[in-house]
Amino acid sequence: MAKQERAVRTRDTLIRSAAEVFDRDGISTASLTAISSRAGVSNGALHFHFASKAALVDVVEEVALTRLLAVTSSTLPLGASHVQLLVDVTHALADALRGDVVLRVGFALSGETSRARRVDLRERWRCWVEETLQQAEAEGELCRGAEIRDVGTAVVAATVGFEVLGVRDSTWLAASTVARFWRLLLPSLVPAVRLAGIEAGGTRSP
Amino acid sequence: MAKQERAVRTRDTLIRSAAEVFDRDGISTASLTAISSRAGVSNGALHFHFASKAALVDVVEEVALTRLLAVTSSTLPLGASHVQLLVDVTHALADALRGDVVLRVGFALSGETSRARRVDLRERWRCWVEETLQQAEAEGELCRGAEIRDVGTAVVAATVGFEVLGVRDSTWLAASTVARFWRLLLPSLVPAVRLAGIEAGGTRSP
Repeated sequence: MAKQERAVRTRDTLIRSAAEVFDRDGISTASLTAISSRAGVSNGALHFHFASKAALVDVVEEVALTRLLAVTSSTLPLGASHVQLLVDVTHALADALRGDVVLRVGFALSGETSRARRVDLRERWRCWVEETLQQAEAEGELCRGAEIRDVGTAVVAATVGFEVLGVRDSTWLAASTVARFWRLLLPSLVPAVRLAGIEAGGTRSP
Repeated sequence: MAKQERAVRTRDTLIRSAAEVFDRDGISTASLTAISSRAGVSNGALHFHFASKAALVDVVEEVALTRLLAVTSSTLPLGASHVQLLVDVTHALADALRGDVVLRVGFALSGETSRARRVDLRERWRCWVEETLQQAEAEGELCRGAEIRDVGTAVVAATVGFEVLGVRDSTWLAASTVARFWRLLLPSLVPAVRLAGIEAGGTRSP
């Protein structure tokens, strides 16, 4: 393995180990020694890649953002429903949050009041949800009475609730939980005639 | 002022100051010195009341639980709607979370993975929501198709989302936000004939 490739692997391992230790111990109490020992490298190797814990926290957040963007950047087949895309992507996000500790820590960082806000994944998620709802409205997919702002509020609040409650109990991030939420919400969102065409359980396998 | 009364006041001031410092600095980094100085008492006085930071955290959580119980223990006038009670109490909870730092920290403690779960306010809230929905169903207030479990999931996830997002931006806990959520959800919850009788904005002044 070339030296550069090895360095990239060590860096990736350190980022993942840092997220695991942040998730377990909380960011403020997490120690750099716990992170380097979890990654199986020396403290010196950690400091070669990251100048400080704050730098490591920032990088975990940046990587989490790329994971969120990967989840939300699905392209829509021609003529496909934006509402179905919204349903599918909330399922994909819940699934990713359940399995991906870096993404989970990245979301939790949005709520860290003791740290200046930088990336703010929850805010990015809110923007994506609202844009997708606007597209659905522009395509005439929504009920006449459906207010985008109401729906956006409910979807963002509920998904952040799933994310936060899922830290302790992963059934909050289960596909069945997300499907229950959509089954309840969809009749207020799309006209009755379109309802049968939308799968509350999502149309992609996780 | 009698000595005992003064001691009770000092203890109350310490609990509030602790919650303020936990809210601002995070629990793990909060220092006892910051708490005693915020409360305007000596470190010795703090230690007279609380043996350790952990003891103080536990007491903040206990006090937060009594505040939550005060919010959820509203008695229902004879013949009044359990659905309206649910709407009113979510408004009262959002309002209390906006103004009451002890309650806010108590809720946040539910998500602290580095600490053994004791009281768990989010879980208590979930139980109250589900019980109230069961009563609403028993009284025939709900739509035929409404699944209590679906509604409970949506209400608990969304309120926890409001709580968490509200730490950074209190508009998530505004009455207008809570009302938007209910305006969207109520048509899936109660039959059309009952809908006009339920106020999404709540029936009590905050």
